[in-house]
Formats: sequence, structure tokens, C-alpha cells
Amino acid sequence: TFSQKILGSTTVFSIDNNQNPVDWTVADVASYFTAAGFPEQALAFRTQEIDGKSLLLMQRNDVLTGLSIRLGPALKIYERHVKVLQQTHFQDDEAFC
Amino acid sequence: TFSQKILGSTTVFSIDNNQNPVDWTVADVASYFTAAGFPEQALAFRTQEIDGKSLLLMQRNDVLTGLSIRLGPALKIYERHVKVLQQTHFQDDEAFC
Amino acid sequence: TFSQKILGSTTVFSIDNNQNPVDWTVADVASYFTAAGFPEQALAFRTQEIDGKSLLLMQRNDVLTGLSIRLGPALKIYERHVKVLQQTHFQDDEAFC
Amino acid sequence: TFSQKILGSTTVFSIDNNQNPVDWTVADVASYFTAAGFPEQALAFRTQEIDGKSLLLMQRNDVLTGLSIRLGPALKIYERHVKVLQQTHFQDDEAFC
Amino acid sequence: TFSQKILGSTTVFSIDNNQNPVDWTVADVASYFTAAGFPEQALAFRTQEIDGKSLLLMQRNDVLTGLSIRLGPALKIYERHVKVLQQTHFQDDEAFC
Repeated sequence: TFSQKILGSTTVFSIDNNQNPVDWTVADVASYFTAAGFPEQALAFRTQEIDGKSLLLMQRNDVLTGLSIRLGPALKIYERHVKVLQQTHFQDDEAFC
Repeated sequence: TFSQKILGSTTVFSIDNNQNPVDWTVADVASYFTAAGFPEQALAFRTQEIDGKSLLLMQRNDVLTGLSIRLGPALKIYERHVKVLQQTHFQDDEAFC
Repeated sequence: TFSQKILGSTTVFSIDNNQNPVDWTVADVASYFTAAGFPEQALAFRTQEIDGKSLLLMQRNDVLTGLSIRLGPALKIYERHVKVLQQTHFQDDEAFC
Repeated sequence: TFSQKILGSTTVFSIDNNQNPVDWTVADVASYFTAAGFPEQALAFRTQEIDGKSLLLMQRNDVLTGLSIRLGPALKIYERHVKVLQQTHFQDDEAFC
Repeated sequence: TFSQKILGSTTVFSIDNNQNPVDWTVADVASYFTAAGFPEQALAFRTQEIDGKSLLLMQRNDVLTGLSIRLGPALKIYERHVKVLQQTHFQDDEAFC
């Protein structure tokens, strides 16, 4: 249920039937990070009850210290996924203006 | 005892007889967050003794790390409620000038 | 041994015989916060060995996270007391220039 | 397997066959810090699963508080190694433009 | 082995035979803070393995939260000693340019 989209050197996975992260449930967010290669960290997103709306509000420090996950994966999750999903989302928003 | 007011895409609840958050007691703050769909987090506001005056002084990081609540709900509580209540409050203040 | 001075909407207490907070001992600081209505938090100032000189060096985050006190009172202690005492103190300093 | 390069007053070690830190594995990062004189702290980088890509994303505060290592060595690891590796890496990148 | 130098209202102690803090060992740093009236906190500097080079890299927040010392003394240690030693050190550096 995930397709890949290449953005520069970063691969962002998206849920086929529900592309816009703003509509993702907590389970969708966890599935996303499992598919992206972070099954262990996906659990932490679930524990902290992070759905798509919350994901789009996360800042670097929230990912690094608010999830109680190891620093190495946290740095990649923020830079390659959270940040990129937010940039894509807010670009799409602007495209409607 | 709560009415809803639509502000853009955000619903802010207000206590009918006591609209101005600056006058809310600790119990009013807890009632507000229970009505807003965060009964568990409402308890944390009560534990930290946050009345309306303190609520209007809270910054993003205070909500995210000072209440010991889960990150997902914390992000929404700040963005959709604390921040919006503060903006509304300080706009109202300016309207009197 | 405390008198009150009204500053805008904020009441700042001052120790009669020793008005300048820079000269307050750890016990004076604790007495100040007890008189201001924060007897429990006054204890935390004492535990952290905060005298007048240290009090004048405290920033928002130091009050909120460095004293292990509840967030609601901490927000008011900073905004209504620590910040105001510092502004008054540094204004007085400028008056001498 | 390490050679030394002098950069101002700072010595940066590099892995001979794999000079670009972006390609370092978690084991390479640990070897680097062991060779640089921080064998104990190398273990913390390994525990936090920090490979070369994550290393290049680390900020001062991540090194000081995210690795649970002592403050003295942490300050030197950031200033003399992490920061310098990042500067060298991003300079090399620019050289290709 | 310490002499005193008056800088404005601040007294900075310096180790006679080894004035430049950049050359201080962990033991020298501890001796400095013991002589400056902070014997208990000197122990924390030693525990965190802070030598002169690390001392010159410390920021306000590192002193306040990274040493696990009480807030009152920490505020004074930073303002009257760490900050002043750094200013003196970097002024001396500039004098050579």
C-alpha cells in the first residue's frame, strides 16, 4: 500500500489511497515509518499517538528528544522523512493558491 | 457550559459565563480541555496548577515538555488551542486600544 | 517586613530595610516568595541556594525547569516577580548613569 | 587504517579507504572516535547507532546531551571533530559546484 | 598558587605558574573553583572531566544543566567565572593579532 516518490536524493513513501499526510491516522504514520525502514521507531510514533496532523507539526527537537528513540535513526527520520513530508505538504498547499 | 467559535479551521471552545481566559480558574482550564476532547491531558493541566493567566503565558515548549503528556496530543493542544486562545486574547486586548 | 509597590498590574513586594534585591540573602529570597503567595515554591528557591544576585541572573527557562516546581506557579513567578524585579533593578541602575 | 590531516590547530583523522564520512558505517564512526582518543565515547556513538550520515547531521546540543557522555569530552568531540568533519565535508561538496 | 585580578566588580582567580586557562588540567580547573569559593561544584567539574580547553567552550546552559549542580551557585559560576575567563582569554588572543 506504499508507493515511492524520489525527491532529490530522498525517497518519500506515500500511502496510495490517502496521499496527503494531513489525513493519516496514527496507524498510517506507524505504517509509513515501518515501510521506510524504521519499524522500531514506528512503535514510538504510535506510543506518542502521532497522527498525520501532529506529524506535520513536529520540529527537529521533538523528533530527537520527544520520542525516546536512538539519536542516529532520529536524525535520519527528521531529515529524510518528517522535514521532507512537511516541505512537500506545504508546497502542495501553496500550489492551490 | 461551553460554546464553540470557529476560527479559520480551528474550533475554540469558550466558557459561556466567563469568556475571557484570563479569568479562568484551574478547574475552568481543565473543563476547557476535557470539552475540547483531551480529558486525559486536562488532568495534567490541573496537576501543574495552570489557570487562565498561566495558560496565556505558555509557550510551545512548555506544553510539549512541561506537562508530561504524549507528544501527539501535546502538538495539537498547543497549535489548535493554547496558541489560538492567546491570539484571540491579545487581539481582543488590542481592540480596546 | 515587606511593603508592596504597584507596577502596572503587577505587585512587587520589597524587603523594607534592604530594598535592592542584589543584596538579598537566600533567606530574603525565600521570604519574598512566601510573602508573594508562593510558600511552597519559596522552598525550592532555598534548596537551589538562590540569593538576590542569582535571582537577578535567572532566565525564563531557569525558573520553569531548574526549580522542579509546578508549571502554573512557575509561569507566574517568572512573569510577575523575577522579570519585574530584574526590570526594576536594571532601570534603577540606569537612573544612576 | 587512519591517516591524520592537520586543519589549523585541529587534527582530523580519516579512514584511508573511505575518506568521505557520508559513507561511514556505525563501526567506522566508532573506530574514528577510538582513534581520536575517545574510546569510551565511541561506544556511545555505537549505542545510539550513529553512522556517517547521522554524524553529519549532529548539532552541538545533540553531542552534549543526546549521547549521555561526560561534558568535558563531549565539548571537545563536538568542537574538534564533529564540527570540523562537517565543515570539511560541506567544503568538499562546494568544490564540485 | 592563586592570585586575584579585579575585572570590574568581578574577581577572577588565576593559577600563578600557568595563567592561560587553555593549559589548565582537570585538576587545575577544580582547584580554581575551590579557590573561588565553590568546593562542592569543583567536584562536578572534575566528574565531568572538564579541563581548561573544555571550560573555554562551555555555554551558559552547559554550566546550568550539564553539571548537575544547584541553580544558585551555577548562575554565579557562569556569570562571574566561566564567562569572564572566556572574555579575558579571547581578548588576550586578539591582542596578539
